[in-house]
Amino acid sequence: MRAASQKKAVVLSSGGIDSSVAMAIAKDKGYSIYSITFDYGQRHSCEIEAARRVAESLKVKKHLVFPVNLRSFGGSALTSDKAVPKGRSTEEIFYGIPETYVPARNTIFLSIALGWAETLGIRDIFIGVTAVDYSGYPDCRPEYISAFEILMNLATKAGVEGDEFKIHAPLLNLHKAEIVHEGTRLGMDLGLTHSCYDPGENGRPCGLCDSCLLRQKGFMEAGIKDPAETAREI
Amino acid sequence: MRAASQKKAVVLSSGGIDSSVAMAIAKDKGYSIYSITFDYGQRHSCEIEAARRVAESLKVKKHLVFPVNLRSFGGSALTSDKAVPKGRSTEEIFYGIPETYVPARNTIFLSIALGWAETLGIRDIFIGVTAVDYSGYPDCRPEYISAFEILMNLATKAGVEGDEFKIHAPLLNLHKAEIVHEGTRLGMDLGLTHSCYDPGENGRPCGLCDSCLLRQKGFMEAGIKDPAETAREI
Repeated sequence: MRAASQKKAVVLSSGGIDSSVAMAIAKDKGYSIYSITFDYGQRHSCEIEAARRVAESLKVKKHLVFPVNLRSFGGSALTSDKAVPKGRSTEEIFYGIPETYVPARNTIFLSIALGWAETLGIRDIFIGVTAVDYSGYPDCRPEYISAFEILMNLATKAGVEGDEFKIHAPLLNLHKAEIVHEGTRLGMDLGLTHSCYDPGENGRPCGLCDSCLLRQKGFMEAGIKDPAETAREI
Repeated sequence: MRAASQKKAVVLSSGGIDSSVAMAIAKDKGYSIYSITFDYGQRHSCEIEAARRVAESLKVKKHLVFPVNLRSFGGSALTSDKAVPKGRSTEEIFYGIPETYVPARNTIFLSIALGWAETLGIRDIFIGVTAVDYSGYPDCRPEYISAFEILMNLATKAGVEGDEFKIHAPLLNLHKAEIVHEGTRLGMDLGLTHSCYDPGENGRPCGLCDSCLLRQKGFMEAGIKDPAETAREI
Protein backbone atom coordinates (compact mmCIF):
# COMPACT_ATOMS: atom_id res chain seq x y z
CA MET A 1 0.00 0.00 0.00
CA ARG A 2 1.24 3.46 -0.87
CA ALA A 3 1.96 5.85 2.00
CA ALA A 4 -0.76 8.45 2.52
CA SER A 5 1.57 11.23 1.41
CA GLN A 6 2.09 9.56 -1.98
CA LYS A 7 -1.50 8.65 -2.74
CA LYS A 8 -2.83 10.42 -5.80
CA ALA A 9 -6.10 10.11 -7.65
CA VAL A 10 -7.60 11.43 -10.85
CA VAL A 11 -11.18 12.50 -10.17
CA LEU A 12 -13.73 13.15 -12.92
CA SER A 13 -15.55 16.34 -12.04
CA SER A 14 -18.69 17.73 -13.65
CA GLY A 15 -19.32 20.45 -11.09
CA GLY A 16 -22.45 18.60 -9.92
CA ILE A 17 -23.15 17.15 -6.49
CA ASP A 18 -22.17 13.55 -7.20
CA SER A 19 -18.71 14.10 -8.65
CA SER A 20 -17.98 16.77 -6.02
CA VAL A 21 -18.89 14.42 -3.17
CA ALA A 22 -16.81 11.67 -4.83
CA MET A 23 -13.91 14.14 -4.82
CA ALA A 24 -14.49 14.99 -1.14
CA ILE A 25 -14.45 11.25 -0.36
CA ALA A 26 -11.17 10.78 -2.26
CA LYS A 27 -9.66 13.70 -0.35
CA ASP A 28 -10.94 12.29 2.93
CA LYS A 29 -9.22 8.99 2.09
CA GLY A 30 -5.93 10.86 1.84
CA TYR A 31 -5.50 11.16 -1.91
CA SER A 32 -4.10 14.29 -3.47
CA ILE A 33 -6.48 15.17 -6.22
CA TYR A 34 -6.00 15.70 -9.94
CA SER A 35 -9.42 16.73 -11.17
CA ILE A 36 -10.51 16.70 -14.79
CA THR A 37 -13.56 18.41 -16.26
CA PHE A 38 -14.69 18.04 -19.85
CA ASP A 39 -15.68 20.96 -21.98
CA TYR A 40 -17.66 18.69 -24.28
CA GLY A 41 -19.99 21.10 -25.97
CA GLN A 42 -22.63 20.92 -23.24
CA ARG A 43 -25.40 23.52 -23.36
CA HIS A 44 -23.74 25.96 -20.97
CA SER A 45 -20.49 26.64 -19.13
CA CYS A 46 -22.06 26.79 -15.64
CA GLU A 47 -20.91 23.28 -14.80
CA ILE A 48 -17.35 24.01 -15.91
CA GLU A 49 -17.32 27.08 -13.64
CA ALA A 50 -18.80 25.01 -10.80
CA ALA A 51 -16.09 22.36 -11.27
CA ARG A 52 -13.46 25.10 -10.98
CA ARG A 53 -15.02 26.35 -7.73
CA VAL A 54 -15.13 22.81 -6.32
CA ALA A 55 -11.50 22.16 -7.34
CA GLU A 56 -10.41 25.35 -5.62
CA SER A 57 -12.45 24.62 -2.53
CA LEU A 58 -11.00 21.12 -2.19
CA LYS A 59 -7.49 22.41 -2.89
CA VAL A 60 -6.76 19.99 -5.70
CA LYS A 61 -3.19 19.54 -6.86
CA LYS A 62 -4.17 20.24 -10.46
CA HIS A 63 -7.42 20.90 -12.29
CA LEU A 64 -7.56 20.17 -16.01
CA VAL A 65 -10.36 21.42 -18.26
CA PHE A 66 -10.16 19.16 -21.31
CA PRO A 67 -11.98 20.10 -24.53
CA VAL A 68 -13.60 17.27 -26.46
CA ASN A 69 -16.36 18.64 -28.62
CA LEU A 70 -19.14 16.06 -28.71
CA ARG A 71 -21.45 18.71 -30.17
CA SER A 72 -19.60 18.12 -33.45
CA PHE A 73 -21.74 15.01 -33.84
CA GLY A 74 -24.57 15.66 -31.38
CA GLY A 75 -26.97 12.85 -30.58
CA SER A 76 -28.22 14.20 -27.25
CA ALA A 77 -30.38 16.99 -25.86
CA LEU A 78 -27.22 18.12 -24.05
CA THR A 79 -25.11 18.40 -27.20
CA SER A 80 -27.61 19.50 -29.83
CA ASP A 81 -30.71 21.63 -30.21
CA LYS A 82 -33.03 18.87 -29.01
CA ALA A 83 -35.21 20.04 -26.10
CA VAL A 84 -34.30 19.01 -22.56
CA PRO A 85 -37.27 17.17 -20.98
CA LYS A 86 -38.93 19.22 -18.24
CA GLY A 87 -41.35 18.62 -15.40
CA ARG A 88 -41.23 14.84 -15.51
CA SER A 89 -42.50 12.73 -12.63
CA THR A 90 -40.10 10.57 -10.60
CA GLU A 91 -41.58 7.52 -12.34
CA GLU A 92 -40.82 9.02 -15.74
CA ILE A 93 -37.29 9.97 -14.71
CA PHE A 94 -36.57 6.47 -13.47
CA TYR A 95 -38.04 4.75 -16.55
CA GLY A 96 -35.90 4.23 -19.64
CA ILE A 97 -33.07 6.30 -21.04
CA PRO A 98 -33.92 9.97 -21.65
CA GLU A 99 -33.01 12.43 -24.42
CA THR A 100 -30.23 13.79 -22.22
CA TYR A 101 -28.26 10.56 -22.67
CA VAL A 102 -24.99 11.44 -24.43
CA PRO A 103 -23.67 8.57 -26.59
CA ALA A 104 -20.51 7.05 -25.05
CA ARG A 105 -19.99 10.02 -22.72
CA ASN A 106 -18.55 8.26 -19.69
CA THR A 107 -16.49 5.96 -21.92
CA ILE A 108 -14.92 8.97 -23.62
CA PHE A 109 -14.38 10.75 -20.29
CA LEU A 110 -12.93 7.71 -18.51
CA SER A 111 -10.64 6.99 -21.47
CA ILE A 112 -9.18 10.48 -21.42
CA ALA A 113 -8.90 10.36 -17.62
CA LEU A 114 -7.08 7.04 -18.03
CA GLY A 115 -4.58 8.55 -20.46
CA TRP A 116 -3.92 11.45 -18.10
CA ALA A 117 -3.63 9.13 -15.09
CA GLU A 118 -1.13 6.86 -16.82
CA THR A 119 0.95 9.86 -17.84
CA LEU A 120 0.95 11.15 -14.25
CA GLY A 121 1.79 7.71 -12.81
CA ILE A 122 -1.61 7.64 -11.07
CA ARG A 123 -3.52 4.35 -10.84
CA ASP A 124 -6.66 5.40 -8.91
CA ILE A 125 -9.55 7.04 -10.75
CA PHE A 126 -12.66 8.28 -8.95
CA ILE A 127 -15.99 8.77 -10.68
CA GLY A 128 -19.20 9.92 -8.98
CA VAL A 129 -21.66 7.70 -10.80
CA THR A 130 -24.68 6.34 -8.98
CA ALA A 131 -27.07 3.68 -10.16
CA VAL A 132 -29.80 4.46 -7.61
CA ASP A 133 -31.35 7.94 -7.94
CA TYR A 134 -30.19 8.39 -11.52
CA SER A 135 -31.33 8.97 -15.06
CA GLY A 136 -30.96 5.42 -16.36
CA TYR A 137 -27.76 6.13 -18.25
CA PRO A 138 -26.19 2.74 -19.07
CA ASP A 139 -22.67 4.06 -18.42
CA CYS A 140 -23.46 4.66 -14.75
CA ARG A 141 -24.13 1.03 -13.84
CA PRO A 142 -21.85 -1.27 -11.81
CA GLU A 143 -21.45 -3.77 -14.68
CA TYR A 144 -20.24 -0.96 -16.92
CA ILE A 145 -17.72 0.23 -14.34
CA SER A 146 -16.40 -3.33 -13.90
CA ALA A 147 -16.03 -3.76 -17.67
CA PHE A 148 -14.11 -0.49 -17.93
CA GLU A 149 -11.78 -1.57 -15.14
CA ILE A 150 -10.97 -4.78 -17.04
CA LEU A 151 -10.43 -2.79 -20.22
CA MET A 152 -8.05 -0.29 -18.55
CA ASN A 153 -5.69 -3.04 -17.55
CA LEU A 154 -5.63 -4.55 -21.02
CA ALA A 155 -5.32 -1.17 -22.75
CA THR A 156 -2.33 0.35 -21.01
CA LYS A 157 1.39 -0.19 -20.56
CA ALA A 158 1.01 0.08 -16.78
CA GLY A 159 -1.91 -2.33 -16.76
CA VAL A 160 -0.21 -5.06 -18.77
CA GLU A 161 2.93 -4.65 -16.68
CA GLY A 162 0.86 -5.45 -13.58
CA ASP A 163 0.73 -1.93 -12.11
CA GLU A 164 -3.04 -1.99 -12.23
CA PHE A 165 -5.59 0.77 -12.46
CA LYS A 166 -8.62 0.88 -10.22
CA ILE A 167 -11.89 2.75 -10.63
CA HIS A 168 -13.46 3.98 -7.42
CA ALA A 169 -17.18 4.67 -7.65
CA PRO A 170 -17.99 5.36 -3.98
CA LEU A 171 -21.55 6.58 -4.67
CA LEU A 172 -22.61 3.66 -6.83
CA ASN A 173 -25.18 2.32 -4.36
CA LEU A 174 -26.19 5.54 -2.61
CA HIS A 175 -29.47 7.42 -2.84
CA LYS A 176 -29.22 11.13 -3.65
CA ALA A 177 -30.16 11.98 -0.05
CA GLU A 178 -27.31 9.79 1.22
CA ILE A 179 -24.93 11.56 -1.17
CA VAL A 180 -26.09 14.94 0.17
CA HIS A 181 -25.56 13.67 3.72
CA GLU A 182 -22.10 12.31 2.90
CA GLY A 183 -21.03 15.60 1.32
CA THR A 184 -22.35 17.53 4.30
CA ARG A 185 -20.62 15.19 6.77
CA LEU A 186 -17.32 15.75 4.96
CA GLY A 187 -17.73 19.53 5.17
CA MET A 188 -18.18 19.94 1.44
CA ASP A 189 -19.92 23.19 0.42
CA LEU A 190 -22.61 21.81 -1.88
CA GLY A 191 -23.61 25.38 -2.64
CA LEU A 192 -20.63 25.51 -5.00
CA THR A 193 -22.08 22.80 -7.23
CA HIS A 194 -24.33 23.16 -10.26
CA SER A 195 -26.81 20.54 -11.48
CA CYS A 196 -29.21 22.11 -13.97
CA TYR A 197 -29.07 20.91 -17.61
CA ASP A 198 -30.69 24.06 -18.91
CA PRO A 199 -30.01 27.13 -16.74
CA GLY A 200 -31.08 30.66 -17.52
CA GLU A 201 -28.58 33.19 -18.78
CA ASN A 202 -27.75 34.21 -15.21
CA GLY A 203 -26.91 30.58 -14.39
CA ARG A 204 -30.12 30.15 -12.41
CA PRO A 205 -31.33 26.54 -12.50
CA CYS A 206 -34.55 25.86 -14.40
CA GLY A 207 -35.91 23.77 -11.51
CA LEU A 208 -37.70 21.45 -13.92
CA CYS A 209 -35.15 19.32 -15.76
CA ASP A 210 -34.41 15.80 -14.49
CA SER A 211 -31.16 16.96 -12.93
CA CYS A 212 -32.84 19.80 -11.00
CA LEU A 213 -35.61 17.46 -9.88
CA LEU A 214 -33.19 14.79 -8.67
CA ARG A 215 -31.25 17.47 -6.78
CA GLN A 216 -34.41 18.78 -5.12
CA LYS A 217 -35.46 15.24 -4.23
CA GLY A 218 -32.05 14.57 -2.69
CA PHE A 219 -32.01 17.67 -0.49
CA MET A 220 -35.65 17.21 0.46
CA GLU A 221 -35.19 13.58 1.50
CA ALA A 222 -32.00 14.49 3.34
CA GLY A 223 -33.90 17.19 5.21
CA ILE A 224 -31.25 19.75 4.30
CA LYS A 225 -31.78 23.10 2.58
CA ASP A 226 -29.91 23.41 -0.72
CA PRO A 227 -27.16 25.92 0.03
CA ALA A 228 -26.73 26.96 -3.62
CA GLU A 229 -27.45 30.69 -3.81
CA THR A 230 -29.19 30.16 -7.10
CA ALA A 231 -31.28 27.24 -5.87
CA ARG A 232 -35.00 27.51 -6.45
CA GLU A 233 -37.05 27.49 -3.32
CA ILE A 234 -39.16 24.34 -3.26
CA MET B 1 -28.79 -9.11 -41.79
CA ARG B 2 -28.98 -5.57 -43.18
CA ALA B 3 -29.29 -5.20 -46.95
CA ALA B 4 -26.04 -4.25 -48.67
CA SER B 5 -27.39 -0.82 -49.59
CA GLN B 6 -28.00 0.00 -45.94
CA LYS B 7 -24.75 -1.28 -44.50
CA LYS B 8 -22.72 1.49 -42.90
CA ALA B 9 -19.49 1.42 -40.93
CA VAL B 10 -17.42 3.86 -38.94
CA VAL B 11 -13.74 3.33 -39.79
CA LEU B 12 -10.88 4.71 -37.70
CA SER B 13 -8.36 6.18 -40.07
CA SER B 14 -4.83 7.33 -39.28
CA GLY B 15 -3.71 7.80 -42.87
CA GLY B 16 -1.32 4.85 -42.49
CA ILE B 17 -1.33 1.58 -44.40
CA ASP B 18 -3.19 -0.53 -41.85
CA SER B 19 -6.24 1.66 -41.29
CA SER B 20 -6.44 2.42 -45.02
CA VAL B 21 -6.46 -1.27 -45.92
CA ALA B 22 -9.04 -1.90 -43.18
CA MET B 23 -11.16 0.79 -44.86
CA ALA B 24 -10.70 -0.80 -48.28
CA ILE B 25 -11.81 -4.14 -46.79
CA ALA B 26 -14.92 -2.52 -45.25
CA LYS B 27 -15.75 -0.95 -48.61
CA ASP B 28 -15.17 -4.27 -50.37
CA LYS B 29 -17.65 -5.87 -47.96
CA GLY B 30 -20.28 -3.39 -49.12
CA TYR B 31 -20.30 -0.89 -46.26
CA SER B 32 -20.65 2.80 -46.90
CA ILE B 33 -17.88 4.41 -44.95
CA TYR B 34 -17.88 7.08 -42.26
CA SER B 35 -14.20 7.65 -41.54
CA ILE B 36 -12.83 9.40 -38.49
CA THR B 37 -9.32 10.74 -37.99
CA PHE B 38 -8.02 12.20 -34.77
CA ASP B 39 -6.10 15.42 -34.62
CA TYR B 40 -4.62 14.43 -31.27
CA GLY B 41 -1.57 16.63 -31.05
CA GLN B 42 0.66 14.24 -32.96
CA ARG B 43 4.04 15.57 -34.11
CA HIS B 44 2.89 16.53 -37.58
CA SER B 45 -0.19 16.88 -39.77
CA CYS B 46 1.03 14.57 -42.57
CA GLU B 47 -1.08 11.69 -41.35
CA ILE B 48 -4.21 13.85 -41.16
CA GLU B 49 -3.60 14.92 -44.75
CA ALA B 50 -2.99 11.30 -45.77
CA ALA B 51 -6.27 10.25 -44.10
CA ARG B 52 -8.07 12.94 -46.14
CA ARG B 53 -6.52 11.60 -49.36
CA VAL B 54 -7.51 8.04 -48.48
CA ALA B 55 -11.07 9.10 -47.60
CA GLU B 56 -11.39 10.89 -50.93
CA SER B 57 -9.90 7.99 -52.85
CA LEU B 58 -12.29 5.48 -51.25
CA LYS B 59 -15.24 7.84 -51.72
CA VAL B 60 -16.35 7.77 -48.11
CA LYS B 61 -19.80 9.06 -47.21
CA LYS B 62 -18.35 11.40 -44.60
CA HIS B 63 -14.89 12.07 -43.20
CA LEU B 64 -14.63 13.60 -39.73
CA VAL B 65 -11.41 15.08 -38.36
CA PHE B 66 -11.94 15.13 -34.62
CA PRO B 67 -9.65 17.23 -32.38
CA VAL B 68 -8.69 15.69 -29.04
CA ASN B 69 -5.48 17.24 -27.82
CA LEU B 70 -3.53 14.53 -26.03
CA ARG B 71 -0.47 16.80 -26.14
CA SER B 72 -2.10 18.72 -23.29
CA PHE B 73 -0.87 15.96 -21.03
CA GLY B 74 1.81 14.27 -23.15
CA GLY B 75 3.28 10.99 -21.97
CA SER B 76 4.55 9.80 -25.36
CA ALA B 77 7.25 10.57 -27.89
CA LEU B 78 4.38 11.27 -30.29
CA THR B 79 2.69 13.86 -28.07
CA SER B 80 5.62 15.55 -26.33
CA ASP B 81 9.21 16.58 -26.96
CA LYS B 82 10.58 13.12 -26.18
CA ALA B 83 12.74 11.78 -29.02
CA VAL B 84 11.26 9.20 -31.40
CA PRO B 85 13.47 6.07 -31.37
CA LYS B 86 15.38 5.64 -34.63
CA GLY B 87 17.28 2.88 -36.40
CA ARG B 88 16.16 0.06 -34.16
CA SER B 89 16.54 -3.57 -35.17
CA THR B 90 13.48 -5.75 -35.80
CA GLU B 91 14.23 -7.52 -32.51
CA GLU B 92 14.21 -4.21 -30.66
CA ILE B 93 10.98 -3.09 -32.36
CA PHE B 94 9.24 -6.32 -31.43
CA TYR B 95 10.46 -6.30 -27.82
CA GLY B 96 8.51 -4.38 -25.17
CA ILE B 97 6.51 -1.17 -25.46
CA PRO B 98 8.37 1.78 -27.00
CA GLU B 99 8.43 5.51 -26.22
CA THR B 100 5.92 6.06 -29.03
CA TYR B 101 3.20 4.35 -26.99
CA VAL B 102 0.45 6.94 -26.35
CA PRO B 103 -1.41 6.30 -23.06
CA ALA B 104 -4.96 5.10 -23.72
CA ARG B 105 -4.88 6.22 -27.36
CA ASN B 106 -6.99 3.52 -28.97
CA THR B 107 -9.39 3.55 -26.02
CA ILE B 108 -9.93 7.28 -26.48
CA PHE B 109 -10.26 6.91 -30.26
CA LEU B 110 -12.63 3.93 -30.10
CA SER B 111 -14.77 5.68 -27.48
CA ILE B 112 -15.23 8.75 -29.64
CA ALA B 113 -15.86 6.56 -32.69
CA LEU B 114 -18.46 4.71 -30.63
CA GLY B 115 -20.24 7.95 -29.72
CA TRP B 116 -20.28 9.02 -33.35
CA ALA B 117 -21.46 5.58 -34.51
CA GLU B 118 -24.32 5.49 -32.01
CA THR B 119 -25.41 8.97 -33.09
CA LEU B 120 -25.39 7.89 -36.75
CA GLY B 121 -27.24 4.64 -36.03
CA ILE B 122 -24.16 2.67 -37.11
CA ARG B 123 -23.22 -0.52 -35.25
CA ASP B 124 -20.11 -1.67 -37.14
CA ILE B 125 -16.74 -0.14 -36.33
CA PHE B 126 -13.58 -1.04 -38.25
CA ILE B 127 -10.10 -0.57 -36.82
CA GLY B 128 -6.87 -1.52 -38.58
CA VAL B 129 -4.95 -2.86 -35.60
CA THR B 130 -2.59 -5.77 -36.05
CA ALA B 131 -0.90 -7.81 -33.36
CA VAL B 132 1.69 -9.40 -35.64
CA ASP B 133 4.16 -6.94 -37.23
CA TYR B 134 3.46 -4.22 -34.68
CA SER B 135 5.02 -2.06 -32.03
CA GLY B 136 3.83 -3.98 -28.98
CA TYR B 137 1.11 -1.47 -28.12
CA PRO B 138 -1.23 -3.19 -25.64
CA ASP B 139 -4.29 -1.59 -27.23
CA CYS B 140 -3.71 -3.44 -30.51
CA ARG B 141 -4.13 -6.96 -29.10
CA PRO B 142 -7.12 -9.27 -29.63
CA GLU B 143 -7.91 -9.46 -25.90
CA TYR B 144 -8.11 -5.67 -25.80
CA ILE B 145 -10.44 -5.54 -28.80
CA SER B 146 -12.70 -8.19 -27.24
CA ALA B 147 -12.86 -6.28 -23.96
CA PHE B 148 -13.78 -3.07 -25.78
CA GLU B 149 -16.55 -4.87 -27.63
CA ILE B 150 -18.02 -6.06 -24.33
CA LEU B 151 -17.72 -2.55 -22.92
CA MET B 152 -19.48 -0.92 -25.91
CA ASN B 153 -22.57 -2.98 -25.37
CA LEU B 154 -22.74 -2.15 -21.67
CA ALA B 155 -21.98 1.54 -22.22
CA THR B 156 -24.58 2.52 -24.77
CA LYS B 157 -28.34 2.87 -25.16
CA ALA B 158 -28.23 0.81 -28.36
CA GLY B 159 -26.08 -1.86 -26.74
CA VAL B 160 -28.27 -2.37 -23.69
CA GLU B 161 -31.34 -2.39 -25.92
CA GLY B 162 -29.86 -5.35 -27.81
CA ASP B 163 -28.90 -3.50 -31.00
CA GLU B 164 -25.29 -4.51 -30.55
CA PHE B 165 -22.07 -2.92 -31.70
CA LYS B 166 -19.34 -4.96 -33.31
CA ILE B 167 -15.66 -4.15 -33.76
CA HIS B 168 -14.12 -5.45 -36.94
CA ALA B 169 -10.34 -5.80 -36.84
CA PRO B 170 -9.70 -7.58 -40.14
CA LEU B 171 -5.90 -7.21 -39.97
CA LEU B 172 -5.47 -8.52 -36.45
CA ASN B 173 -3.59 -11.65 -37.47
CA LEU B 174 -1.91 -10.45 -40.66
CA HIS B 175 1.77 -9.75 -41.26
CA LYS B 176 2.60 -6.36 -42.75
CA ALA B 177 3.42 -8.01 -46.08
CA GLU B 178 -0.02 -9.65 -46.12
CA ILE B 179 -1.61 -6.27 -45.39
CA VAL B 180 0.30 -4.74 -48.33
CA HIS B 181 -0.85 -7.61 -50.55
CA GLU B 182 -4.46 -7.26 -49.40
CA GLY B 183 -4.47 -3.51 -50.07
CA THR B 184 -2.95 -4.07 -53.49
CA ARG B 185 -5.43 -6.83 -54.31
CA LEU B 186 -8.30 -4.47 -53.45
CA GLY B 187 -6.90 -1.78 -55.75
CA MET B 188 -6.03 0.55 -52.89
CA ASP B 189 -3.40 3.17 -53.77
CA LEU B 190 -1.00 2.68 -50.86
CA GLY B 191 0.99 5.61 -52.20
CA LEU B 192 -1.60 7.89 -50.62
CA THR B 193 -0.76 6.66 -47.13
CA HIS B 194 1.75 8.06 -44.66
CA SER B 195 3.52 6.05 -41.96
CA CYS B 196 6.48 8.05 -40.60
CA TYR B 197 6.33 9.25 -36.98
CA ASP B 198 8.84 12.00 -37.58
CA PRO B 199 8.83 13.31 -41.15
CA GLY B 200 10.89 16.21 -42.45
CA GLU B 201 9.29 19.58 -43.10
CA ASN B 202 8.46 18.55 -46.64
CA GLY B 203 6.61 15.48 -45.31
CA ARG B 204 9.40 13.15 -46.41
CA PRO B 205 9.57 10.09 -44.14
CA CYS B 206 12.65 9.75 -41.94
CA GLY B 207 13.12 6.12 -42.98
CA LEU B 208 14.44 5.22 -39.54
CA CYS B 209 11.56 5.30 -37.05
CA ASP B 210 9.80 2.06 -36.14
CA SER B 211 6.85 2.95 -38.34
CA CYS B 212 9.05 3.57 -41.40
CA LEU B 213 10.99 0.38 -40.73
CA LEU B 214 7.83 -1.73 -40.40
CA ARG B 215 6.52 -0.21 -43.65
CA GLN B 216 9.79 -0.98 -45.46
CA LYS B 217 9.76 -4.53 -44.09
CA GLY B 218 6.17 -5.00 -45.26
CA PHE B 219 6.78 -3.86 -48.83
CA MET B 220 10.06 -5.74 -49.03
CA GLU B 221 8.56 -9.01 -47.83
CA ALA B 222 5.56 -8.50 -50.12
CA GLY B 223 7.96 -8.02 -53.05
CA ILE B 224 6.20 -4.78 -53.97
CA LYS B 225 7.76 -1.34 -54.45
CA ASP B 226 6.35 1.30 -52.09
CA PRO B 227 4.32 3.56 -54.39
CA ALA B 228 4.51 6.57 -52.04
CA GLU B 229 6.24 9.33 -53.98
CA THR B 230 8.04 10.36 -50.82
CA ALA B 231 9.15 6.83 -49.94
CA ARG B 232 12.82 6.39 -49.26
CA GLU B 233 14.56 4.01 -51.60
CA ILE B 234 15.68 0.95 -49.72
